[in-house]
Amino acid sequence: MSSPVFPAWKWFIEFTHPTQAHMHGVKRYVYSGKTQFQDIEIIDTYFFGRCLVLDGKIQSAQFDEYIYHEALIHPAMIIHPHPREILVIGGGEGAVLREIIKHPQVEKLVMVDIDQEVVELCQRYLPEWSNGAFEDPKVDVHFMDAREYLENTDYRWDIIFIDITEPLDDNPSYRLFTKEFYQLVVQKLKKNGVTALQAGNLNTAFFECHGAVYNTLKLVFKNVESYGAFIPSYDTNWGFIIASNEYSALGVYPAKIDTEIARRNINDLRFYDSQSHTNMFALTKDVRDRRSKEKRIIEDDKPLFTY
Amino acid sequence: MSSPVFPAWKWFIEFTHPTQAHMHGVKRYVYSGKTQFQDIEIIDTYFFGRCLVLDGKIQSAQFDEYIYHEALIHPAMIIHPHPREILVIGGGEGAVLREIIKHPQVEKLVMVDIDQEVVELCQRYLPEWSNGAFEDPKVDVHFMDAREYLENTDYRWDIIFIDITEPLDDNPSYRLFTKEFYQLVVQKLKKNGVTALQAGNLNTAFFECHGAVYNTLKLVFKNVESYGAFIPSYDTNWGFIIASNEYSALGVYPAKIDTEIARRNINDLRFYDSQSHTNMFALTKDVRDRRSKEKRIIEDDKPLFTY
Amino acid sequence: MSSPVFPAWKWFIEFTHPTQAHMHGVKRYVYSGKTQFQDIEIIDTYFFGRCLVLDGKIQSAQFDEYIYHEALIHPAMIIHPHPREILVIGGGEGAVLREIIKHPQVEKLVMVDIDQEVVELCQRYLPEWSNGAFEDPKVDVHFMDAREYLENTDYRWDIIFIDITEPLDDNPSYRLFTKEFYQLVVQKLKKNGVTALQAGNLNTAFFECHGAVYNTLKLVFKNVESYGAFIPSYDTNWGFIIASNEYSALGVYPAKIDTEIARRNINDLRFYDSQSHTNMFALTKDVRDRRSKEKRIIEDDKPLFTY
Amino acid sequence: MSSPVFPAWKWFIEFTHPTQAHMHGVKRYVYSGKTQFQDIEIIDTYFFGRCLVLDGKIQSAQFDEYIYHEALIHPAMIIHPHPREILVIGGGEGAVLREIIKHPQVEKLVMVDIDQEVVELCQRYLPEWSNGAFEDPKVDVHFMDAREYLENTDYRWDIIFIDITEPLDDNPSYRLFTKEFYQLVVQKLKKNGVTALQAGNLNTAFFECHGAVYNTLKLVFKNVESYGAFIPSYDTNWGFIIASNEYSALGVYPAKIDTEIARRNINDLRFYDSQSHTNMFALTKDVRDRRSKEKRIIEDDKPLFTY
Repeated sequence: MSSPVFPAWKWFIEFTHPTQAHMHGVKRYVYSGKTQFQDIEIIDTYFFGRCLVLDGKIQSAQFDEYIYHEALIHPAMIIHPHPREILVIGGGEGAVLREIIKHPQVEKLVMVDIDQEVVELCQRYLPEWSNGAFEDPKVDVHFMDAREYLENTDYRWDIIFIDITEPLDDNPSYRLFTKEFYQLVVQKLKKNGVTALQAGNLNTAFFECHGAVYNTLKLVFKNVESYGAFIPSYDTNWGFIIASNEYSALGVYPAKIDTEIARRNINDLRFYDSQSHTNMFALTKDVRDRRSKEKRIIEDDKPLFTY
Repeated sequence: MSSPVFPAWKWFIEFTHPTQAHMHGVKRYVYSGKTQFQDIEIIDTYFFGRCLVLDGKIQSAQFDEYIYHEALIHPAMIIHPHPREILVIGGGEGAVLREIIKHPQVEKLVMVDIDQEVVELCQRYLPEWSNGAFEDPKVDVHFMDAREYLENTDYRWDIIFIDITEPLDDNPSYRLFTKEFYQLVVQKLKKNGVTALQAGNLNTAFFECHGAVYNTLKLVFKNVESYGAFIPSYDTNWGFIIASNEYSALGVYPAKIDTEIARRNINDLRFYDSQSHTNMFALTKDVRDRRSKEKRIIEDDKPLFTY
Repeated sequence: MSSPVFPAWKWFIEFTHPTQAHMHGVKRYVYSGKTQFQDIEIIDTYFFGRCLVLDGKIQSAQFDEYIYHEALIHPAMIIHPHPREILVIGGGEGAVLREIIKHPQVEKLVMVDIDQEVVELCQRYLPEWSNGAFEDPKVDVHFMDAREYLENTDYRWDIIFIDITEPLDDNPSYRLFTKEFYQLVVQKLKKNGVTALQAGNLNTAFFECHGAVYNTLKLVFKNVESYGAFIPSYDTNWGFIIASNEYSALGVYPAKIDTEIARRNINDLRFYDSQSHTNMFALTKDVRDRRSKEKRIIEDDKPLFTY
Repeated sequence: MSSPVFPAWKWFIEFTHPTQAHMHGVKRYVYSGKTQFQDIEIIDTYFFGRCLVLDGKIQSAQFDEYIYHEALIHPAMIIHPHPREILVIGGGEGAVLREIIKHPQVEKLVMVDIDQEVVELCQRYLPEWSNGAFEDPKVDVHFMDAREYLENTDYRWDIIFIDITEPLDDNPSYRLFTKEFYQLVVQKLKKNGVTALQAGNLNTAFFECHGAVYNTLKLVFKNVESYGAFIPSYDTNWGFIIASNEYSALGVYPAKIDTEIARRNINDLRFYDSQSHTNMFALTKDVRDRRSKEKRIIEDDKPLFTY
């Protein structure tokens, strides 16, 4: 960490509530702009290094993006024995592609992101995030609405990853958090397909999003499994969900995970292994209790928005 | 949560680094003072309710103190089959007493805290924290330096809990984080005794304290086991350690934990159960890797101070 | 100034706009409460000493309250040759009384403040502000709505001072900023009476209040004169207005001010003298230009509210 | 003012003391860099528009730079009857040039600024500040240390303006605030020459710089006159000084100022006129008292640094 000026004079302040905020001293505001869909900032913080900020929320930070991306990708890739054809919805930084192609079974990898400008800015300013994955011949990228994409394809996937921003009232991602959308997802999965998604904060005071997504997926999938990972730059334990009609992450025998990672010759993981898997899928009692109290279902005409 | 004024005008800003801070909108500063040993604030935040702040750091918050206190107390109490005689070092709020006396085996419970004024202010302003535990006939409280207390007693304990503030350069707790102190602790434990302690941030960027405490305990105890719990009001995954020459928290068969909790007739835990135990003791790979890189040992003449 | 903790952890943040705020490190929140009419805080800041805060705005600070109170009181007291009977509307801290009774001509001094609790808290926590003035036998205090008071009295005053908080939408002071109210004021002044009031920010970006009050007074009084004083704890040049059908502060020959102050045996002023008078009543060109662009008139059914 | 995002997430926080800061919501960080001499930021704030920030301090803002620049330039230009040859030390934004060339007598205008990169960045990002003045054939710019420039020239000027940043311990401007430097200045002025300079905060709590500069100039010049102007983006009343062995700004009959401005055909001033002159040069009693208590003298070997 380079020596900070103190007191720092440039700050990024992320409000998560009218009376809660996290202050990050900023070394440099690298890029500030507004795409067709969202505000984007690339900032160099003293503490977390380079960060991507969309609509005022840190999406990923150089210091710990490996946690988020490994946590989102590898559990689903590992519990699926033959993850050959993979669809990614969102994931503009390209780090999900980077993680997915570590698995040698992958034959086809399509990413659908609505915001071409974000993808291009990430390639320019955050090249380590994708680490060349966009150039991989297995990878295809489409810039369009993911819902429209799914409605118009007959393809069926082994795994569909959903890596989109939280549903704010002025960005379009809220239409990818509804029962109708998840019904579309299950249709486009193979019978034994798996979906994995980022699914909101696990802090019980901000739990509505996670709980409602969980409930909504339960209407569509047989196995729906919450998990979490502490991400320092988010200041919180972040939630994810794996859903499938066939496989389960909870049922996996931990040691098998390390064996499978080794069998696939993946040797550069910094976060994910059997013990991390165990940690992530063992939700604490208060979180489970909070989840069981949440009754909300998200539908196209009853969308969810977060702060 | 009561409706906040916005923008709030009273704030508590907890700096964890010159360029990192967390802002809490404050409904009311209830008490502000300076004891012989530290600055103390009792504040009512909009988000986390009433909070105890010592030397500018939130120690516990109404919203989530149950996490910290259950995480510190119950793993040690459960892995020890007969926790009859318990010593608490620090723990001024009294919430550790509250948790300990839930276990029916407890016969003798002594708390040694250097700061009588903090204990009295907590009883006055945070009565739910101790919930009457100070009046329990099994409980004795001594206001004195814990190191001096241990040096001058021949008593030997089943469990010694160490619940003290982080070692800042202007408070006395740093002398309770050294090899010499832990040697004293092990002498005052029965042969099969256990110690459990709060042990610093598990964020890998702030890991020095946890890593050094872990290394130092390894010089003194056979089994030293890190664990963590995400505490929203701390913004982080907080570290704890259990150390014993006899028992192990890692080796416990999870289902046995729930059985034992039930056998002891403890039915009001909000955080701790077998799944929480599993979560806490399964450290993620990056945290384990960071821990193995930390070489620091803490000694009386090489003390550790945190920001 | 006592040595501050750094970084301070308690802050008072005064927002003047959604994107503008002033941060004050706080040594101690001395009193926090809610009267029938407003939120009140007494805080000890490191920089400005003890401050009175009403509805989130600093009203006066130990460091520089002399500027505000001398600026409000003495110009009117000096231009009026026989200020014998004085009415104060608002002025809860009592510092206006303290300044007024320095003038030996004063025979009768009545203060009407709606908020008894604020007055009592100021006497308790800010005794230097009133400095015993509430005990002066010439002083009478009534706790009631000033508009109702004026409507129900036949008394006529030499000077009426109006020292009330800015018109926010949730406090009652906005009814004391309207044409109808000023018409009541002029009726209760003697023919050669004078009124002086605090009259909003002179920063041209926040000028609406001052400009509108000025315009509204012009409908009622012959001479209406803006003036300003820089008040460090307000971060700004603050506006006042003197209005009279007889006297003028602009027309006073400066040297006469010092002579008159000496003749009245007032020898403890820290801010006000002839040169300060000259400074205050000479508005800079940009402020005058901004004032001449403001067309707003405040009426009971078109009230003004500030941020 | 364009509609702000709220809560804003990008902020510029200007600390003036460990417990005092001003927060500005930022629309866009336009440029961030480090020249050979200082950190430079060009930022678009919601409230004050585009701002130039050097070493963490706002130097000038689109909203009110006219105040600072007119206040610095025109009093000296007006009291000097024939301001033909003018030297500017510092003044990188070019706005001082813009103001100076409004006076038709100017024949030769030299600017010496140590930091070429700042000047070029200002021309690129703040073109309205210089408004073409750098292209004026009367203007010459030298990029070098001003002290070295003066030591090596025999030229003598009618007016020397000193428009440099405050003396921080890591920038070179502190050598332009000493008795030795002012002795050099007076040598390079014609016998009836005038110097005018920005001279620190007039807030009595931050007065050391102004007081010491005033005292130091008194050792060198016969007439030394403080004056001030409230600058909203500085949050304070800012100080300036005019010094001369011949002319005086205090002695000018105000009406003559407006006559002289008109005679010179200057008709686009927004801030300066006779009434503003009166305001600026009439210091309030507390400021004069504070100034008379300051005994400090600045010398090469006893330099002054500000926070």
